[in-house]
Amino acid sequence: MFKLHDRLEADTLQICDLELSTLRLMNDRRFSWVILIPQREFLVEWHDTSRGDRDLLMEEIACLSEVLKNVVNADKVNVASLGNLVPQLHIHVVGRFKSDVAWPGPVWGVGTPDPYAANQAEELIGKLRVALPQN
Amino acid sequence: MFKLHDRLEADTLQICDLELSTLRLMNDRRFSWVILIPQREFLVEWHDTSRGDRDLLMEEIACLSEVLKNVVNADKVNVASLGNLVPQLHIHVVGRFKSDVAWPGPVWGVGTPDPYAANQAEELIGKLRVALPQN
Repeated sequence: MFKLHDRLEADTLQICDLELSTLRLMNDRRFSWVILIPQREFLVEWHDTSRGDRDLLMEEIACLSEVLKNVVNADKVNVASLGNLVPQLHIHVVGRFKSDVAWPGPVWGVGTPDPYAANQAEELIGKLRVALPQN
Repeated sequence: MFKLHDRLEADTLQICDLELSTLRLMNDRRFSWVILIPQREFLVEWHDTSRGDRDLLMEEIACLSEVLKNVVNADKVNVASLGNLVPQLHIHVVGRFKSDVAWPGPVWGVGTPDPYAANQAEELIGKLRVALPQN
């Protein structure tokens, strides 16, 4: 049975469930940073996915990349799975701005997360929910 | 017509061409770091790819992830597209070790690249060529 890793649960807010993945917002208002987690057990690497899940995951990444870029009007989207600290397969999709504090470097490990005020997070989550095809 | 970005050309060594992507080795022996570049014009974001190319790209990422992990016996594979400096869509696939100089952080922007001696690069390139399904 799929269970979200405790660290991901603690660091993120729920947005919605897509066909394969659950989608969460990183609770760090410095970045427009969402995370796809395929709802399958024991996935660590991309090659651990089945062929069918892989196609779903690719569609979810591409769809989310486009939706996020449009919703926040990002200059660029970064897509990445690292998993060096949290082994459960999860894909970061981050809307980047030339004005953000980490540009042009990556966002991981930069400074200290700045959590959203409740209504700020709800506003972005609401916009993403409306724009995404939900399960 | 597809043309490899000058910066990617300068920083990497050719491995082989897959069905969609050309595969290059980052010329930095500190990491087991390869890059897939889909051989299409004007791709910047994942959502710029066609549905057919997207399926090919996913298969190439998953295949390369498994091959690289096995060939270098990596602890973890990192998969990422950033493109903040080089806009041409390219996907980093990096075999990570708990003993590498950037662990557990990401590899981008860490220190200074340490180029391979010629025979070192050829050895790794040869192993990858043998293990990969080439076009």
